[in-house]
Amino acid sequence: MTNKYNIVLLGSGNVAFHLAEMLKLSDINISQIYNINEKSGKELAQKYNTNFTNNISNINKDADLYIIAVKDIFIENIIDKLTINKGVIVHTSGTTDINVFAGKFENYGILYPLQTFTKEIKLNYNEIPFLIEANSSKTIDFINNIACLISNNVTNTNSEQRKLIHIAAVFACNFTNYFYSIADDLLDKQNLNFDLLKPLIKETTRKAIESKPKENQTGPAKRKDLNTINKHLETLENNKEIQKLYGIISEMIIKSNSSV
Amino acid sequence: MTNKYNIVLLGSGNVAFHLAEMLKLSDINISQIYNINEKSGKELAQKYNTNFTNNISNINKDADLYIIAVKDIFIENIIDKLTINKGVIVHTSGTTDINVFAGKFENYGILYPLQTFTKEIKLNYNEIPFLIEANSSKTIDFINNIACLISNNVTNTNSEQRKLIHIAAVFACNFTNYFYSIADDLLDKQNLNFDLLKPLIKETTRKAIESKPKENQTGPAKRKDLNTINKHLETLENNKEIQKLYGIISEMIIKSNSSV
Repeated sequence: MTNKYNIVLLGSGNVAFHLAEMLKLSDINISQIYNINEKSGKELAQKYNTNFTNNISNINKDADLYIIAVKDIFIENIIDKLTINKGVIVHTSGTTDINVFAGKFENYGILYPLQTFTKEIKLNYNEIPFLIEANSSKTIDFINNIACLISNNVTNTNSEQRKLIHIAAVFACNFTNYFYSIADDLLDKQNLNFDLLKPLIKETTRKAIESKPKENQTGPAKRKDLNTINKHLETLENNKEIQKLYGIISEMIIKSNSSV
Repeated sequence: MTNKYNIVLLGSGNVAFHLAEMLKLSDINISQIYNINEKSGKELAQKYNTNFTNNISNINKDADLYIIAVKDIFIENIIDKLTINKGVIVHTSGTTDINVFAGKFENYGILYPLQTFTKEIKLNYNEIPFLIEANSSKTIDFINNIACLISNNVTNTNSEQRKLIHIAAVFACNFTNYFYSIADDLLDKQNLNFDLLKPLIKETTRKAIESKPKENQTGPAKRKDLNTINKHLETLENNKEIQKLYGIISEMIIKSNSSV
C-alpha cells in the first residue's frame, strides 16, 4: 500500500536518484519526474514506473509535494518557471536559502539530506540526517511527516544553521576525501598501494565517531615536532602546492594546540 | 610459552605503550624498559612485570632486540649514549632515516607501525601495517620474524618510501582528524551536534576503503559550483584562517578535476 502523498521529483542527478529510491522504499508515490535532460530523466522515470516530462509547463499542478533536487544554480530558474496550484515545494540544497521561494509559493521549505551520494552505491537511508525547514508550522509538520517516513534522523534547522552544517560537511567529507586522494597520489609515485593506509583511515574514523576529534589529534604538528615537519616539507619540495598545504595546516594545528 | 627473543623497549609514550602490549600478546619477552621519565616508564614496566631503568648505561647489553620508541628528536641522543654488545637495534619512526644508526651499530633497522595510537584505545594489532627496513638481509629476516609475530601486514620499504608513506598518513589521518575538529567547532558555534556529521563521515570512509578516493570526490568544488563556494566563503568571513583554507583546498580540487 502506498502512502497517500503524491510527489513530483525535479531532477535526476545523484540526490534525485537516491531520493527516488528512498521514496519508493517508504511507499511514497512519485507521480512525475521532471528533468531538463531527457535521457537521464526518462531512465529514472522508467525505473520507478512513473511519468516523465522535460517541459516544465507540463508538470502536474496538483501534487502534494514538489522536490527540487537539482544543482543549486538551477534552482531559481525552476522556481521562476514553475506554476503549481497547491502543495508544498522544497529544495534539497545545503546552501540555498529558504527565501528563494518567497513571494512565489504559498507553502515551501527545505528537505536536505546530509550525505554524500554516488549513484551506484547503496546506503542505509534511515540513518541519513535530514535537515528540514519551512515557512509555516503547518508546512514544517508536513515536511517532517515525509522526512520521518524516510529517515529516523530528522532535525529542524534554520537556513543559517543549514549553511554552516554544509560547510562543516565540506571539511569533514569533501576535503577529507580530497586528502585521501593526495595520499593515494603520493603513494602511487613510489609504487606503494593505498591499502597500506586503510587500517589508519579506519581507526581515525572510528575515533572521530567515538570521541571528540580535538582529543584524538595525533601527528607531527600536534607534537610540535618541527624536525619531522621540516623533513616532510623538504620531501615535498617538488610538489609546491601540496607542500604549501602541508605547511599551512601544520601551522594551524600547532597554533590551535598552543591556544588551548 | 614465550618466544626465545629477549627485548629491551626504550620509551613509554603512545607507541611504546602499544608495542609493549603487542609484544606481550605475541608471547615475546620484554626483559627491560628504559625511559628518561621515571614515572611513566616504571608504570609500563610494572604492567608487564619487567625491569625498569632510567639510566641508559644500565641497559642490558645482551638483548636480541632494542626498540627505540621515543619522539624523533630524542632518537639520536639515545643512539649516542647507548652501548650494546650484540643484537639488533631499531627505531619506530616514520620519518627518521635508517642511516641514523650507521657507524654506531652492527645490525640495525626500522620497525614502523603505521597507525594512530592513543594510550587507552585498544586496537586490532594484527591488522596494523608494519613497515620494516634493515642494513643487511640477515637483519631484515630477524626484524621480519618479529614483525610477523605481531601483525599479518608486514612490508619491506626503504627510508624514502617510508617517509612518503608517513606524509601520506599525515594527510589521510592527522589532517583529516583536524578537519573533523574544524567541523565540530563550526557546528558548536550554532549549538549543533557533531553527531549530525557522523553518517557522512562513516560513508566517506567506507567509500575510500572500497574504491579509489579520486573517483569518490563530491561537493561544491568537485562540481565547480562557484555560487556555493562563494556563499561558504562569505559565511566564513569572521573566521579568516578557516576561510583561507576553504578557498585554497576548493581551488586545488577544481584544478585537479580540470586537469583530468
